[in-house]
Amino acid sequence: MTDNRAIGIFDSGLGGLTVVRELIKILPNEDIIYLGDTARVPYGTRSKETIIKFSHEDAAFLLTKKVKIIIIACNTASAMAGYRLKNSLKVPVFDVIIPALKEAKRISIKGKIGTIGTRATILSGAYKGTHGTPCPLLVPFIEEGILKGSAISHVLKDYLAPLKKKKIDTLILGCTHYPIIKNIIQKEIGSKVKLINPEKIVAEDAREYLTQKGMLTGKKTNGKRQYFVTDLTERFRKVAEMFLGHSLNGSIKKVTLG
Amino acid sequence: MTDNRAIGIFDSGLGGLTVVRELIKILPNEDIIYLGDTARVPYGTRSKETIIKFSHEDAAFLLTKKVKIIIIACNTASAMAGYRLKNSLKVPVFDVIIPALKEAKRISIKGKIGTIGTRATILSGAYKGTHGTPCPLLVPFIEEGILKGSAISHVLKDYLAPLKKKKIDTLILGCTHYPIIKNIIQKEIGSKVKLINPEKIVAEDAREYLTQKGMLTGKKTNGKRQYFVTDLTERFRKVAEMFLGHSLNGSIKKVTLG
Repeated sequence: MTDNRAIGIFDSGLGGLTVVRELIKILPNEDIIYLGDTARVPYGTRSKETIIKFSHEDAAFLLTKKVKIIIIACNTASAMAGYRLKNSLKVPVFDVIIPALKEAKRISIKGKIGTIGTRATILSGAYKGTHGTPCPLLVPFIEEGILKGSAISHVLKDYLAPLKKKKIDTLILGCTHYPIIKNIIQKEIGSKVKLINPEKIVAEDAREYLTQKGMLTGKKTNGKRQYFVTDLTERFRKVAEMFLGHSLNGSIKKVTLG
Repeated sequence: MTDNRAIGIFDSGLGGLTVVRELIKILPNEDIIYLGDTARVPYGTRSKETIIKFSHEDAAFLLTKKVKIIIIACNTASAMAGYRLKNSLKVPVFDVIIPALKEAKRISIKGKIGTIGTRATILSGAYKGTHGTPCPLLVPFIEEGILKGSAISHVLKDYLAPLKKKKIDTLILGCTHYPIIKNIIQKEIGSKVKLINPEKIVAEDAREYLTQKGMLTGKKTNGKRQYFVTDLTERFRKVAEMFLGHSLNGSIKKVTLG
């Protein structure tokens, strides 16, 4: 059995392109439709009610594109709206949190796990049983392309201090932006701490599901990728390519939600 | 002549409360209706098209409240949508840029004026004839309440370096957030450089207009203040009071725009 419909992915902004990068690596033939809600990014500082409303609008847009599954490539949206979307949508929904948490618990030796993320993600308690620390300034730094230097190092040092005190052995990067700075995070938290990248794990999770259900594409050529955003600025391509790790092949269109 | 209708003010978020603070000081009897578009803040990183759309929605909301004038307490919205709002609305519209620029030109001795602001404000060219430098990370730092310390000092040093090189004698704080950190800005740019606070100037500008037109309120008691936001989180009160400089007296209500 095959299923040639596209995989749908949404994120509050462009950070979710790190998930697209992983999907392209492991499922190169799949069509992908990405939506970044760039007119309303960031979600991580907003209320639960607003994040749920925005996430439903994002998912509704992807459904109009007849996707076969939806991946929530945003920790904040996964934490605040993941459960509701899974219960209300007609297609399978994957979130970044559940598989990452499972993987962290599998590999942690002492069971001392830390999580870094936006304020909304950490306060949601979705990364249950881990020591959470909100890192609200990391997203702005990364979106500015400031990936090293004194300022971000100072900020990171302050954020990670409580987790170092807890002597964690595993650290979940609970925001799709963070893999971009994983080297300085590893340096600051110490080389013995294992980092968990949810965007790799959710891509694996989706592949496993599609394989088991006979829902992989039947196409043998490279998949078609379409990118939709709710706001388009001149910096879009530059920031998008930073997350994607290569040049954007595919159309970019602006859409209006809500 | 008197006019008891309220003064309407909008901002992308809570930074515009620095204008409310000034208005309360100089026009204590006036009723004030404030709208902060906290569900879609920040505007400074978005496209012109999106900023114009959001600004029109903000102004439309204030008009439903029968305000007598509208103050755009946001440099980004002033830069991108000020002209259009002035031409399309039925009430007088005040922006923060035109009076600040006039004041800067009046007090600058050498005519070497610098402006700091969001990326959208600086790229708009609205602060004509000044040396502009976008400072995109200052708003996130201020909204986090990080108003001093190594990290923000490093960031500020980098941002101000090109203006120091130009030997400016006057610096426009082209974002309503910046007066909150005016001490460290003054320290970094040097004590001889004069800082221009647009939020004081626009409040003066509005008072002058209302006085000349006989549109001041006839009330002799303290004005009524109503605050509306498009998203309400637990941090709202804390951040709002930082900008307002005192406790919030008045109702806060959540509204939906767009």
